[in-house]
Amino acid sequence: MSADTVFGACPVPARGYDRVVMGHGSGGRLSADLLQQVFLPAFEGQVLAALEDQATVELSGTRMALTTDSFVVRPIFFPGGDIGTLAVNGTVNDLAVGGAVPRFLSAAFILEEGLPLEDLERVARSMRRACDAAGVVLVTGDTKVVDRGKADQLFITTTGVGAYPPFRPPVSIAAARAGDRVLVSGTLGDHGVAILSVREGLEFETTLESDTAPLTGLVQALLEAASGVRAMRDPTRGGLSSSLHELAAASHVGVHLEEASIPVRREVRAACEILGLDPLYVANEGKLMAVLAPEQAEAGLAALRRHPLGTNAAIVGTVVAEHPGVVTMRSVVGGERVVPMLAGEQLPRIC
Amino acid sequence: MSADTVFGACPVPARGYDRVVMGHGSGGRLSADLLQQVFLPAFEGQVLAALEDQATVELSGTRMALTTDSFVVRPIFFPGGDIGTLAVNGTVNDLAVGGAVPRFLSAAFILEEGLPLEDLERVARSMRRACDAAGVVLVTGDTKVVDRGKADQLFITTTGVGAYPPFRPPVSIAAARAGDRVLVSGTLGDHGVAILSVREGLEFETTLESDTAPLTGLVQALLEAASGVRAMRDPTRGGLSSSLHELAAASHVGVHLEEASIPVRREVRAACEILGLDPLYVANEGKLMAVLAPEQAEAGLAALRRHPLGTNAAIVGTVVAEHPGVVTMRSVVGGERVVPMLAGEQLPRIC
Repeated sequence: MSADTVFGACPVPARGYDRVVMGHGSGGRLSADLLQQVFLPAFEGQVLAALEDQATVELSGTRMALTTDSFVVRPIFFPGGDIGTLAVNGTVNDLAVGGAVPRFLSAAFILEEGLPLEDLERVARSMRRACDAAGVVLVTGDTKVVDRGKADQLFITTTGVGAYPPFRPPVSIAAARAGDRVLVSGTLGDHGVAILSVREGLEFETTLESDTAPLTGLVQALLEAASGVRAMRDPTRGGLSSSLHELAAASHVGVHLEEASIPVRREVRAACEILGLDPLYVANEGKLMAVLAPEQAEAGLAALRRHPLGTNAAIVGTVVAEHPGVVTMRSVVGGERVVPMLAGEQLPRIC
Repeated sequence: MSADTVFGACPVPARGYDRVVMGHGSGGRLSADLLQQVFLPAFEGQVLAALEDQATVELSGTRMALTTDSFVVRPIFFPGGDIGTLAVNGTVNDLAVGGAVPRFLSAAFILEEGLPLEDLERVARSMRRACDAAGVVLVTGDTKVVDRGKADQLFITTTGVGAYPPFRPPVSIAAARAGDRVLVSGTLGDHGVAILSVREGLEFETTLESDTAPLTGLVQALLEAASGVRAMRDPTRGGLSSSLHELAAASHVGVHLEEASIPVRREVRAACEILGLDPLYVANEGKLMAVLAPEQAEAGLAALRRHPLGTNAAIVGTVVAEHPGVVTMRSVVGGERVVPMLAGEQLPRIC
């Protein structure tokens, strides 16, 4: 048996596609394949940010962070936010988890002919509120229109520029070491389940809301309280599992999770059971995953919990030297299993 | 009769839409309306670059230029280039015409399920070649996938960061003065007609090719040769007419064109006649429009003509104090007419 067989690998064939499939947008293994097969060869020596969520560039002696994301979420309005909120917070968070202070945004809109202008106005107002909340300024934009049936209402691409503080924390997805602890800032899966319950018309006693939020303040609080922050990520599409797999691969380490420690809302767990989802793979849009040196983990946890966005923060796992590249988990009933890398697409168009 | 009636205004009602129409993406009056009605109110005090093609921001004491554009051209491959070439050159050119030196790019891809990976690879290679030719580096990216029928093969959004030289030329679309001369760097309409002839299956003796090219070198040559450069633009969607209308509105001046001086390829003119188009409104993707102080116009023209991208450069008009906001033209047969602002959509999805 090969190591792949032992560790379960992925249930869907990940390679050998000659056309784009939905899974190429999953944030999981197929997304990584697309990067490896198409983009990295074409941009050899470029695409500096292939592995991180943002790139660091130097311009006239000033180092800055740059990141971009397209947002294609369906539906464009959902409990807790809309595509505009998401487009601002998503890009803000990619900068923040790289240790940068988000400053400027650009926004490019692709509109489908027939979109009510009222919807566009509502999204624009949401973006403005999100910019104000995150302390960023939208400085430039673009609008294109495509014929009816050639887009889906509204796609937004935001690009963010961030400044590094004078003593920039050397956080990197490749910096984790055995013994480090893995923290999350709150409950997992809220965004993905909120979107899916709207799509599927599911109703719960309480409305499930997206957790979309800017992480800038939470990240600053963590960095000020704990010097041993090695890596940060906002586990969006592909969920915590995908962020941990990226960390494991980039840092050449294994990760071991304790299922009992992972915070998941009761309603989200119930919805996941109905929908056949695993909260570890479901997108978050306002949660921080942080990897800290062991002696700093408790201080980091306390700092997260003091922040309004981190009241449910928890230490959920440990970085290990064994099984590099592989994520394992001890289940609530005590068994240990491999957490496979997301292969296909669990929740299309979640962000 | 109101001034609007005298000057012909636009043949399509520009206001009062409650849904997005194709014309909102034209680069003409409806695009300006969308900005005024939706985006400027929502982002009051932000969107610094509403009128220019790029924004100037300051980060840790360094001034830089930032610009973004989505590309939705159909078809994605055409004579002279493809959507990838366009996505790089378009953003590079927006930086260059603002007097910045393009340095870094981000690229976000929205892929339609079913897109052949071969096509994506070809586009990625084109982008790499275009980056190398323009002297920019792609530093970060994103990929999203949407279901079949919810996009049209491939949309690309690029964002560019540019550096300003120590003595930054104070070029601005609002800086034109009466007496200034209007220059174009070459033949008009090549890109739009190349796209349209592919779409319509038109055949000519010679293949009409898009003029897509990075303008960085041409702009540098002009700035070095002539100190009196007031404004620069790359007249893309909406053509030279739209760039001149923006200039006239922002600088509170009129513009007077000499039709006989405007360079248009014979085949492009023929195609425009067949298709019922006016080359003044057709998109260019590798042409520079520059407004120069009168005493510098000849030096500027000579500099443009010495550059490979400027061999057909010409002085095509004059900035006038009369009729502010209005563009007029003396036709080849001697009559004078108003060149109306593009109202609706002449060529949808041209870039």
